[in-house]
Amino acid sequence: MKPSSIIIGRQPLIEAIQSGRGIDKILFQRNVSGESIGEIRKLAEKLGIPIQQVPQEKLYSFTRANHQGVLALASLFQYIDLQQAIDHVVSLGQVPLFILLEGITDVRNIGAIARSAVCCGAQVMIIPDKGIAALNEEALKSSAGALEKIHICRVSSLLKAVDTLHLNGIKVYASEREADKKLFELNLKDPFCVMMGSEDKGLQPHLRKAADELFTIPMAGSFDSFNVSVAAGIILYEAMKGRI
Amino acid sequence: MKPSSIIIGRQPLIEAIQSGRGIDKILFQRNVSGESIGEIRKLAEKLGIPIQQVPQEKLYSFTRANHQGVLALASLFQYIDLQQAIDHVVSLGQVPLFILLEGITDVRNIGAIARSAVCCGAQVMIIPDKGIAALNEEALKSSAGALEKIHICRVSSLLKAVDTLHLNGIKVYASEREADKKLFELNLKDPFCVMMGSEDKGLQPHLRKAADELFTIPMAGSFDSFNVSVAAGIILYEAMKGRI
Repeated sequence: MKPSSIIIGRQPLIEAIQSGRGIDKILFQRNVSGESIGEIRKLAEKLGIPIQQVPQEKLYSFTRANHQGVLALASLFQYIDLQQAIDHVVSLGQVPLFILLEGITDVRNIGAIARSAVCCGAQVMIIPDKGIAALNEEALKSSAGALEKIHICRVSSLLKAVDTLHLNGIKVYASEREADKKLFELNLKDPFCVMMGSEDKGLQPHLRKAADELFTIPMAGSFDSFNVSVAAGIILYEAMKGRI
Repeated sequence: MKPSSIIIGRQPLIEAIQSGRGIDKILFQRNVSGESIGEIRKLAEKLGIPIQQVPQEKLYSFTRANHQGVLALASLFQYIDLQQAIDHVVSLGQVPLFILLEGITDVRNIGAIARSAVCCGAQVMIIPDKGIAALNEEALKSSAGALEKIHICRVSSLLKAVDTLHLNGIKVYASEREADKKLFELNLKDPFCVMMGSEDKGLQPHLRKAADELFTIPMAGSFDSFNVSVAAGIILYEAMKGRI
């Protein structure tokens, strides 16, 4: 991913994080220490920003400036804390319709899903900080700009995110081939978040277990293999239909 | 596109076409003539196989064999005549659910649409012989094999294909942003074919005019920009839901 810019030095980075600026990754020079480094670590952990330990030369490959052993790659998008996003949606009087993505590796699928989400009135997209395609310029283009119109929450643990959803009365649904319930038999009018797994393996078992409801998209024959972005689109469309 | 094989010589080519073998393109040596060349031309026109005039050297770049001024690139898929496909679907007692693609240039969108089509029980995919992404190995992979499970009709004129559909009592629908009718207000139980236009420009006006019904996919907000394969998936899903 080409970051839109680089943030250099300890205090500038703390200020950037505190101002809500989206950060894709923080690079620490190996064995760096100090009070502000501890503070950056804490903030990064809280906001799910990935940290990487690198040799000093790596930092100098980005900049010749005095980087004080730390450097961050700013992201193209503004990430928002999940609880803040929920509060914002609720304050607008909207019924939460969220989507959680796990392990989607094709940037074009991410883009297509974001488009569907915005078309269908979904307000929040939850993504993990690892194992997902980069939200880069190509993702933005594939999304036809939708990635700038939805709250993106990047979290270090999707399971913890599910906990937060539950604590806020938002149910969590996941599709499963063998489920008895059909998509259109679900209660789609109440607040919910749908979880979508990776293109090849689907949702990880520990996330599936956390789901309040498992459902299946009905199929006409035995060939059941919607593209993940199409499946997400159909689910979001069904939800929207019941709400408009 | 990497063709699966090359067909060399006049008589072998006539026999291949007559046996129903899918042909992606026929290359004629410039100024080639003869009775069998006329026959090949007629067959190609009837089946919508593109013809290209090339210098003799171009043919020799494919083969050193005696090509008799003609050479064909065999396709990965078996194409079928539209009327034959309709007859086959009707003979099985199925209600036609077809999809017509115009100008879709992203091979992954073609693949995703084929997957949705097969998932939703659509039987026929109509494509033009020009201006559409090649149905190559990548398309087959993106389709998770679905391109081998649906009748593919490649035609030289989509408008003529619409005529054939009409003559067989199959209505033709197209989505349009400004349409009054919503997708779920359409009659989706009767035989119909949905037409999908290109990623950027949508359906060409002459095809839109030929539609029996224009409809819109309802949206929650003002952002109305589903990815084309997602839109196709939603339409086919709605059709299937009314039929199973």
